[in-house]
Amino acid sequence: MALTNHRFLLAARPVGMPKRSDWTYAEEPIAEPKEGELLIKVLYISLDPAMRGWMNDARSYVAPVGIGEVMRALGLGTVTASRNPHFAAGDHVSGMFGVQEYALTDGRGVTKIDPRIAPLPKYLSILGMTGMTAYFGLLDTGQPKPEEMVVVSAAAGAVGAVVGQIAKIKDCYVVGIAGGAEKCRYIVDELGFDAAIDYKSDDVKQSLRKHCPKGIDVYFDNVGGAILDAALANLARGARIVICGAISQYNNTGPVTGPSNYMSLLVNRATMKGMMVFDYVDRYGQAAAEMAGWMAAGKLKSREDIVEGLATFPETLLKLFKSENSGKLMLKVG
Amino acid sequence: MALTNHRFLLAARPVGMPKRSDWTYAEEPIAEPKEGELLIKVLYISLDPAMRGWMNDARSYVAPVGIGEVMRALGLGTVTASRNPHFAAGDHVSGMFGVQEYALTDGRGVTKIDPRIAPLPKYLSILGMTGMTAYFGLLDTGQPKPEEMVVVSAAAGAVGAVVGQIAKIKDCYVVGIAGGAEKCRYIVDELGFDAAIDYKSDDVKQSLRKHCPKGIDVYFDNVGGAILDAALANLARGARIVICGAISQYNNTGPVTGPSNYMSLLVNRATMKGMMVFDYVDRYGQAAAEMAGWMAAGKLKSREDIVEGLATFPETLLKLFKSENSGKLMLKVG
Repeated sequence: MALTNHRFLLAARPVGMPKRSDWTYAEEPIAEPKEGELLIKVLYISLDPAMRGWMNDARSYVAPVGIGEVMRALGLGTVTASRNPHFAAGDHVSGMFGVQEYALTDGRGVTKIDPRIAPLPKYLSILGMTGMTAYFGLLDTGQPKPEEMVVVSAAAGAVGAVVGQIAKIKDCYVVGIAGGAEKCRYIVDELGFDAAIDYKSDDVKQSLRKHCPKGIDVYFDNVGGAILDAALANLARGARIVICGAISQYNNTGPVTGPSNYMSLLVNRATMKGMMVFDYVDRYGQAAAEMAGWMAAGKLKSREDIVEGLATFPETLLKLFKSENSGKLMLKVG
Repeated sequence: MALTNHRFLLAARPVGMPKRSDWTYAEEPIAEPKEGELLIKVLYISLDPAMRGWMNDARSYVAPVGIGEVMRALGLGTVTASRNPHFAAGDHVSGMFGVQEYALTDGRGVTKIDPRIAPLPKYLSILGMTGMTAYFGLLDTGQPKPEEMVVVSAAAGAVGAVVGQIAKIKDCYVVGIAGGAEKCRYIVDELGFDAAIDYKSDDVKQSLRKHCPKGIDVYFDNVGGAILDAALANLARGARIVICGAISQYNNTGPVTGPSNYMSLLVNRATMKGMMVFDYVDRYGQAAAEMAGWMAAGKLKSREDIVEGLATFPETLLKLFKSENSGKLMLKVG
């Protein structure tokens, strides 16, 4: 059986927001697995802010995606054929499968997942890289203590929503910053945050001052830009800022706007620290088990925003940068 | 005996570089000490970059100097009259005496010093706040390990010169960033830094890449601005950035320029942390003793830039912001 694969190749380095013309939508035949290889039918593709960085020709924590290469993406799928002793046809797996219908791989970086424990999409959200980022970023880098003030930006986003809920589990007071009344309602009413600030209608700096009269102890930043500056202006002594992302800056055509208020780190003896989830790979299992327990106890919820159709990829990706997704954004492959 | 005091009062909040018209040079009679008070004849006045911040009407780690108040400054002097049981006429003392010839105080925050251990000006430089800032900023906040790459900005300045020398004592490889060939020669030939970068003639980012091929492990920042960004672009994995000052930004009339490259913290799992020397007051004695030992052993040198005449204060202060001082800047009072 000669299979046909559809996939998105990077055609050009985007300037600002990625456009459809930055991609080639290719139709190609797929080779049979050779000795040691396996073929995966991709079911879900994770869409993440970090993908924007991978499109730039800049030194970072991973090499950029090359022009003409399939776009890098996390995904879930089922093994359809295997000549690798560690995998069998029918296995459910996750890994860096790319934005395509089928992935042929030697099995490195491919992990088996169990759809009986949780629905498949959860393995790309709360039990996947997203949940791990929230867990280790908050607990390991942020080091929140009970009754401390924790603030998270992009709070209705995939990472932010988990950060806030874990902070509540750890007995912190939690304020989320999100865009729009519906997202603010969601994080307070459904996720149990103590308060929400709508950056589209509120003055974030003034609202933080109101909600955090003693200052922010842990600020988990997913956005950068003006919101990071507003948080810096409201730190408590000894505050920890977790730098997880800077989505407001990823599509800049000029330089990144650095945080003007960074000298608040000095005044408040505060720390700003970057984190990268891959450093915690040895502890993913333990974290996933703990989070699964919280989910079973009803203390931790996640929401997935699943868009159908591989072909929608260029437009669906932009939902992240327009703050239009509600929950972990992913594609369901046709 | 009715004494006359000359002093500088803050007359206006400076916009950009402080001007002579931002001060009132006042001549006033001095009252005799009341019960519990002592009168100090000020001999040396410390001029520090932080003074620029104290002139702004902004919330910080200390209240701003009020309009009409004597300008805040560290100083050294001798007690001329005392009705405080802890001090006697003839004692040498240091404290926040202000930019004036005589200080009348209740003794709080006044420390006795011993001119037999070191010449008086050393108590405002290496054995004073400046040396303490370098010692605790580098060792406690920066946590350098042997053979690590330490970079310091304003390296020929009062704090930077001590940071670099302590880093050498701790067996680090040390690169200093300074302005001009003479300062660069001084830190390498006289202070023993491994290398110097002249920010006035070199491309700092490229030079750091050359001198630090494996990246910077500890960056001690006194300047902010473009040099902080150049350092961020050259971090090693797990780097620590000590935020001690931002002299390039203190006279801005617009907003502070934040570090554009701060996302390097994420890529490199690096930390940016502010430090404030006052937090270490309990350990000053121990640090001063250790530094005095290094000085006696010839491993630690300091240079003072002593300008004569209280009346020169407005112009002398600007030497700091024009990078014209060589060593710890202070006024010798007439």
